[in-house]
Amino acid sequence: MTKSEKSKIIYKEACKVISGGVSRNTIFRKPYPNYANTAAGCYITDIEGTRRIDFANNMAALIHGHAFPPIVDAVIEQLRKGTAYTLASEVEVAFAKHLSSRVAGVERIRFVNSGTEAVMTMIKAARAYTGRPKIAKAEGTYHGTYDFAEVSQTSNPSNWGDVGGPNSVNLAHGTPKGVLDNVIVFPYNDIEKTIAILETQADQIACVIIDPVPHRVGLVQGTQEFIEAIYNWTRKNGALLVFDEVITLRVNYGGAQEKYSVKPDLTALGKIIGGGFPVGAVAGRAEVMKVFDPHEKNLLLPHSGTFSANPITMTAGYKAMEFFDREAVTKLNTLTEKAVDQIKAVVKLVDVPVSITGAGSMFRMHLRQTPPKTYREAYQTKEENAVINELLDFMYRKQKILMVNTFTCMLSTVMGQHEIDVLTEGLHKAFKALKPKIAKLKNSQL
Amino acid sequence: MTKSEKSKIIYKEACKVISGGVSRNTIFRKPYPNYANTAAGCYITDIEGTRRIDFANNMAALIHGHAFPPIVDAVIEQLRKGTAYTLASEVEVAFAKHLSSRVAGVERIRFVNSGTEAVMTMIKAARAYTGRPKIAKAEGTYHGTYDFAEVSQTSNPSNWGDVGGPNSVNLAHGTPKGVLDNVIVFPYNDIEKTIAILETQADQIACVIIDPVPHRVGLVQGTQEFIEAIYNWTRKNGALLVFDEVITLRVNYGGAQEKYSVKPDLTALGKIIGGGFPVGAVAGRAEVMKVFDPHEKNLLLPHSGTFSANPITMTAGYKAMEFFDREAVTKLNTLTEKAVDQIKAVVKLVDVPVSITGAGSMFRMHLRQTPPKTYREAYQTKEENAVINELLDFMYRKQKILMVNTFTCMLSTVMGQHEIDVLTEGLHKAFKALKPKIAKLKNSQL
Repeated sequence: MTKSEKSKIIYKEACKVISGGVSRNTIFRKPYPNYANTAAGCYITDIEGTRRIDFANNMAALIHGHAFPPIVDAVIEQLRKGTAYTLASEVEVAFAKHLSSRVAGVERIRFVNSGTEAVMTMIKAARAYTGRPKIAKAEGTYHGTYDFAEVSQTSNPSNWGDVGGPNSVNLAHGTPKGVLDNVIVFPYNDIEKTIAILETQADQIACVIIDPVPHRVGLVQGTQEFIEAIYNWTRKNGALLVFDEVITLRVNYGGAQEKYSVKPDLTALGKIIGGGFPVGAVAGRAEVMKVFDPHEKNLLLPHSGTFSANPITMTAGYKAMEFFDREAVTKLNTLTEKAVDQIKAVVKLVDVPVSITGAGSMFRMHLRQTPPKTYREAYQTKEENAVINELLDFMYRKQKILMVNTFTCMLSTVMGQHEIDVLTEGLHKAFKALKPKIAKLKNSQL
Repeated sequence: MTKSEKSKIIYKEACKVISGGVSRNTIFRKPYPNYANTAAGCYITDIEGTRRIDFANNMAALIHGHAFPPIVDAVIEQLRKGTAYTLASEVEVAFAKHLSSRVAGVERIRFVNSGTEAVMTMIKAARAYTGRPKIAKAEGTYHGTYDFAEVSQTSNPSNWGDVGGPNSVNLAHGTPKGVLDNVIVFPYNDIEKTIAILETQADQIACVIIDPVPHRVGLVQGTQEFIEAIYNWTRKNGALLVFDEVITLRVNYGGAQEKYSVKPDLTALGKIIGGGFPVGAVAGRAEVMKVFDPHEKNLLLPHSGTFSANPITMTAGYKAMEFFDREAVTKLNTLTEKAVDQIKAVVKLVDVPVSITGAGSMFRMHLRQTPPKTYREAYQTKEENAVINELLDFMYRKQKILMVNTFTCMLSTVMGQHEIDVLTEGLHKAFKALKPKIAKLKNSQL
């Protein structure tokens, strides 16, 4: 057995007991995924001994990279005292105070175990508060695996219908009609069409859910005007404006919501607030969050969870967020801007039709002359996907750089100039190598 | 500030930032919950310095109690190598093999982050496989917080309707009709009525979900005949039989399903398989689990999750399950039988109408002469609840024993004769003290 066959052999075994050999399709890679041996800072080494720079950071969840010493030390201390109790933990209160102090939309919070649970709990809270059944979401946005939140996540030209009233398209086979009928789909950042769509079922809508920088839509930012328009519409129509900031909290010290003139009624959190451990949270205005409060005479939304707010996640998450202070946020965002500038220079040099979108410490590259503004503009054909996969493969295998599988980078605070230079150089080579294929793409001149 | 005021003061702060002051209503306690300081083995000490025996074990999730040294050591080793990657981990494969080797219904598995996610993913898999929208569940069962799974969890005499066709009652306010219409409710362990109910919508049912020892129904075991009857019905009608073994896996080496002549198509797991860390899993027949497999030409159920199968949970869970071998299971179940026998003797001695239900390492006490057999029989009036809360309070405050808030004990392998003697003695005093109140209850002579 050569070193390079180790992952292949393990994966073969994996397929005998795990469906598809992986628990997350995110890490699925053809012909087989590599197995991790160890990771520290922004470097990850697989069992073949290959060391890569990690620009994926477990799908944006690790803001300080791997095995961040202050987190490791704090977790070990807690570990010796227990990982989960049927009693309360002080660290949950301290952490809740910290998050409340930095994120405008967090007056009250409840922790859960994943972003999926956070969004589901947030939607249930909006329904409980308003007594209404429907939600409205943008076409193409990813909000976890709760089936209502999944609607139209991967709509395509064959099924998405008219942009003035996009179809509610199921992601999973067998999704009940009772789910699809309760989800209204609108085109992100299009005020006129969105408001017109919301108006058609105004008195049925519990909440409009917004990811302020939706990754799958194209990692484009919600415009000030769009967010304001939706906010104003919800005020007039008794609905809630709710944000999915599971990914975007990293964008500013106070989350992506910091830059808007209005604040959401509820916010779902996850990813970086777990410090590398499973986490989610739903937070919001005190009045709305009362739906969870067992002190209320009429408890509208009974809510529990075996591992919710467990002291390990709370300890790790609190430490991660304390170290992600204003200075760290600014430094990381500045480094990311630098990376984007360097890549833009390379794009010009190689002369490939590549544009970049993003915010804060994340950016996504598109094989398009002009940055896409909507899901339908950003939608990639099979041919485009194939070229992007070749680019990702080139980066992964030849340049030893791990990226998010949408050709996206999520940076961490432990990176520096060296790592973005290596990234830029790698992309330089990748664009040169794939230039003929990129040029052939029908959409690339758009 | 006296020692005893510490938790009170922290809780006051908690209520300012956390809805209800807790993320899980399970740990809510009037007038305020105590905050944990440290825990080891089967003992947990709060910040007031009170040490209690822990018969709750984080709602049945800790099979070896707290800070189990082999888990602590293994987790520390992994922690220094990272907690979560965008690559695969070998330990996931080893752990999957282990679970597959011991649980008959686990041919293929996928890990998720909680029991709630496990049940949701299982229901979605059943729909994807069958292409049908509806699920059938038993009245009163708890299956996590996915809204379809929550239906009729707390039905009461004012809304449950005829037992021959129980109403689908929402738990959360604002639950869409599209959810309620897709959940069929049947009375647990009642073959005739259940089959008649299933027959009414036979071609619409994706799966019948069964907890083999449903805690909230009364911790009564599903009879061999009942499980067989449902299994046979699903074979004839193209539906799946799916088990929620999130809690009950601890009952036998191979889970509660071990004792039945038929095995489920899918099984949801959680709790003890996380070794104290957030976990869930959906497992089942290879053919059904294909719905998750990205190798399939037509992927029916795209599925991912940022923290799913993270190497910390996998490491801790694998260690926990390895140490929960056949010998450990037998020893723990024997100790539990001993505890039940001792408590029955005390019940006789004090002469209170108390009965005990349960299986394996868990038992629940009821303020009834005869053990209840159904949810409606086990249903507790407000008056009964008040007395049970007094009993729990007596145990918690005077006898320094922490139990599950349904008057239930979930034992751990680190307990011995001493702990069950202390439990028995505590209950002896509690029953004596509350005897007059128990005797007054209308239902107690049933």
